[in-house]
Amino acid sequence: MFTLYSMPSSGNSYKVRLLLAHLGLSYDHVATEYDGDNTLTRTGDFLRKNPTGKVPTVEFESGECLSESNAILMYFGEGTRFVPADRLARARMYQWMFFEQNFHEATVAVRSAVYIYPQREMDRSPERLAALLVGGNKSLDVMEVQLNKTPYLTGDAITLADLCLYGYTHSADKGGFDVTSRSRSSVADWLERVRQQTGHVPLDWLPV
Amino acid sequence: MFTLYSMPSSGNSYKVRLLLAHLGLSYDHVATEYDGDNTLTRTGDFLRKNPTGKVPTVEFESGECLSESNAILMYFGEGTRFVPADRLARARMYQWMFFEQNFHEATVAVRSAVYIYPQREMDRSPERLAALLVGGNKSLDVMEVQLNKTPYLTGDAITLADLCLYGYTHSADKGGFDVTSRSRSSVADWLERVRQQTGHVPLDWLPV
Repeated sequence: MFTLYSMPSSGNSYKVRLLLAHLGLSYDHVATEYDGDNTLTRTGDFLRKNPTGKVPTVEFESGECLSESNAILMYFGEGTRFVPADRLARARMYQWMFFEQNFHEATVAVRSAVYIYPQREMDRSPERLAALLVGGNKSLDVMEVQLNKTPYLTGDAITLADLCLYGYTHSADKGGFDVTSRSRSSVADWLERVRQQTGHVPLDWLPV
Repeated sequence: MFTLYSMPSSGNSYKVRLLLAHLGLSYDHVATEYDGDNTLTRTGDFLRKNPTGKVPTVEFESGECLSESNAILMYFGEGTRFVPADRLARARMYQWMFFEQNFHEATVAVRSAVYIYPQREMDRSPERLAALLVGGNKSLDVMEVQLNKTPYLTGDAITLADLCLYGYTHSADKGGFDVTSRSRSSVADWLERVRQQTGHVPLDWLPV
């Protein structure tokens, strides 16, 4: 049994809870919300687990810890149907996961966070919001191009890349982005395809 | 033989050239610099290779393409001494590589880019520079904590994570960050350790 520290409202944390639900793995869950300087992730005890002070973070029974949402997906995903056996397909999966952390999360997720969390109010300048809108729309357009060609991001089968990008794409409207069939029909169809997978759980699902 | 599209001045591109040099792989190199709207990466032909319009991008003889610097590292690194055999060590390597794209590159590299490239002048507001300085220093401090404990980021042996983070850390002074022994001695020692590896090449090395 391991422990997952995760934020109920966070897409980065949700990705991990979603994969673990698909895999049917049991774990202890410690919820922590974005709560300014007094949050659990600012304590010395947590910073020893993850010096970045971020969740999701996994603590194994051995006391060893692992952080970064996509690294946690890789750890638990290896050897399952969510990681392609083919070398190039696997590299494509990595490509989308790094794209997610460097481009998509940095725009789509950040613009949502700026609206959702009162602590991010300082980031609500018109210039910042405009730049995040341009970047976020571009990253969603890149997904639309791919999903026009293949049902999942790396081809015919669902991989970690799809669970990963579902995290913040399914809730992109919170940041002012349109992911409905009106403007991005391939993304909208893909969201539904991911949602229809046996074992899927929504953002607000937490393990008992 | 494959083709690598890379930017001579870019740390993301350098990481790939560095690994390929270590592995002794031959390839065709197409150099493209950050040159506003007329750059090669804005052409329709390139956007079909990589819809994000970014380098590095690899084009295989089959015509298939792969982008995102760290995904390219993973593709070529698999099965070499740069990827640990142990599952948790491998996950730690992923952890540092995602940390790099989400946190370190988004602060340390971006602050350097803002100073280096005239096209980024609009990002030189005092508020933006101050925020990037705080974030970049925090990400370098996270590395210092780890490198105080282990000679390389994931333990006793060099991995893709070290090549990856060397890319923008070795030139962090361009963004106004101190990575000398004065303030971050473990990072400074690690930079030297990576530089001393047989097969190492500097940023300005390009294949003939």
